[in-house]
Amino acid sequence: MTRIGIFGGGQLAQMLTQAASALGLATAIFERTPDSPAGRLTQHEIVGAWNDPVALARFAAACDLVTLENEFVDATILAQLEAQGLPVYPTAATVSLVQDKLTQKETLAAAGLAVPAFRGVTSPAAVVQAGADLGWPLVLKARRNGYDGYGNATLHTPAEVPAAWQRLARGDGALLVEAWVPFVRELAVMVARGRDGVSRAYPVVETVQQQHICQLVRAPALLPPEEAAVATALSLKAVEAVHGIGIFGVELFELADGRVLFNELAPRPHNSGHYTIEGCATSQFENHLRAILGWPLGSVALRAPAVVMLNLLGRRTGPVRPADLREALAVQGAHFHLYGKREARVGRKLGHVTALGATLAEAEAIARQAADLVQL
Amino acid sequence: MTRIGIFGGGQLAQMLTQAASALGLATAIFERTPDSPAGRLTQHEIVGAWNDPVALARFAAACDLVTLENEFVDATILAQLEAQGLPVYPTAATVSLVQDKLTQKETLAAAGLAVPAFRGVTSPAAVVQAGADLGWPLVLKARRNGYDGYGNATLHTPAEVPAAWQRLARGDGALLVEAWVPFVRELAVMVARGRDGVSRAYPVVETVQQQHICQLVRAPALLPPEEAAVATALSLKAVEAVHGIGIFGVELFELADGRVLFNELAPRPHNSGHYTIEGCATSQFENHLRAILGWPLGSVALRAPAVVMLNLLGRRTGPVRPADLREALAVQGAHFHLYGKREARVGRKLGHVTALGATLAEAEAIARQAADLVQL
Repeated sequence: MTRIGIFGGGQLAQMLTQAASALGLATAIFERTPDSPAGRLTQHEIVGAWNDPVALARFAAACDLVTLENEFVDATILAQLEAQGLPVYPTAATVSLVQDKLTQKETLAAAGLAVPAFRGVTSPAAVVQAGADLGWPLVLKARRNGYDGYGNATLHTPAEVPAAWQRLARGDGALLVEAWVPFVRELAVMVARGRDGVSRAYPVVETVQQQHICQLVRAPALLPPEEAAVATALSLKAVEAVHGIGIFGVELFELADGRVLFNELAPRPHNSGHYTIEGCATSQFENHLRAILGWPLGSVALRAPAVVMLNLLGRRTGPVRPADLREALAVQGAHFHLYGKREARVGRKLGHVTALGATLAEAEAIARQAADLVQL
Repeated sequence: MTRIGIFGGGQLAQMLTQAASALGLATAIFERTPDSPAGRLTQHEIVGAWNDPVALARFAAACDLVTLENEFVDATILAQLEAQGLPVYPTAATVSLVQDKLTQKETLAAAGLAVPAFRGVTSPAAVVQAGADLGWPLVLKARRNGYDGYGNATLHTPAEVPAAWQRLARGDGALLVEAWVPFVRELAVMVARGRDGVSRAYPVVETVQQQHICQLVRAPALLPPEEAAVATALSLKAVEAVHGIGIFGVELFELADGRVLFNELAPRPHNSGHYTIEGCATSQFENHLRAILGWPLGSVALRAPAVVMLNLLGRRTGPVRPADLREALAVQGAHFHLYGKREARVGRKLGHVTALGATLAEAEAIARQAADLVQL
């Protein structure tokens, strides 16, 4: 039985494990704490810090192939596993390129992708200078470890620079600035790319963020066909540029004139791809496994004209109770996924709900009705 | 986190665990051997005989609610758990009624269901007498523990009685005979029935058996609407008659004149319902969990005009290899489920494949193409 090792035991690893189990694969979960959502679904739960050599050796011994649910694994650790002869996908080289947002942008700009203006900065003065050059507002970003808006700040005036620098630099002293993009919508594309370099792009979707957290995904995005084709081509090219193997979430900006710019990519299953579980012939999780195993990719076709996914974010602090879903389950056609987190916190991602429909309006109405009844 | 205890750790428990995980539920698996397909997906794996009081107590302590993937659990064990205050669904009373095929038939005949002629027999002479009364051929069945044709014999003459008696009676001395039914097709209906008595019937499907093992399921069965309505009503009535709570597989005979007779029912997820994972809005596994938890049932609507499921049976003896699926995975639109069994044997159920289509012919062509390429 092939054993897929996963760095991380959260909901992405949980949903990967569900897909792995259906394909007759076992998973080993390496997480810092016991009783993680995915750790609970395996008897190969390795608890420890990723940089603890003893824990890492135990993990390596439990795997035939290694992947990740989280790009914050130090790429040198991945390289070490590769050097031991363990296949790692995405590769250490890809993760290294991607996990530093400055290197990622440089790589993709060099590959000819349309990206917002950006530059590396090593001091508050350099940020102020960048604002003078690129215009305000300006987005200041940590080069590493940012997600869901953590690690980002939008600066409107030079006066805001010092506080943001102090919050984001955290002793690192190297950040990234990007020109603020007056986007009209955010789009995203999941791309699966196999060990043979064959890749497939899922439909272009619209993502709606609130406070930097993905709230809603509409699949497919309502776009002129030419614009969808540009977004798809750009996403495929981005994953190829980083020599990606596995599933990648590519985030894009749509401008008022219909132009599409690359924003960033994640080398793993992505929140904007959860709709694929029920919405597509093959889920992002299954296609990730196919890709990293060197197996043929599955169809990425939509299974309905329209699919909408809504995240279920905590509205209170306290334990997640089984009955929290009860009323919502009565909404016919709503598909629920809870992540097995024991504690709710305001704004914490606790699950999602997906609905299919003949139109986006129909699917969204079902998903919203269900999400509104969830008592998390 | 609510913990669902399951008697049995095979593929039905595996697929129940996959569904449970998505609903934020944990499972505890009680199986006679370690490393079962479902035991691998939990850290609450209790290994032991179901009638071992120590193992049973450990299992009971790990569960908030108990269910089963296999109706061969001694109903007195279930009753014992109920007496301890642990909810068990289906109840001990239902399992007791159902696991003895004579009691099952008596109960359903008394409820007014159309069933083939049957009677209990306690000697070979009684079987010969039954043949004289009901006509030959005659089906001789063990009252308990039969599945996939094990525990059944079709007898064409009185001369075949002694050998069949010896094989099936196994010291028990109490069997069941049924008039052989000249059916033209076998049909099946999955029924989910909640703790509040509300029930839902999935579409009527056609099942094709070979050597008593389900090979293929066509959903929906091509039937005149009146006949489908009769089959549905009969299935709902059967589950109500045994006070069933949870998901039930109801097997039916279709006669040449369009009449439908009850054959037997299983108080658990059923092979003829695997198509519901991709084929219906809510899978049989999820609706089983909803039913036993007292939650609202999900929609049982088909998600495509036609769905076909084919079992993947072993064609050789030896280890199941990860690459056995590889070629088949290239067939677009085929959904694979492997059961995580380590060893293939000729005829052993190792997995299944499901395909959706605009017509049954289209779905069946995809499923067959995929199944033919599997190297199990």
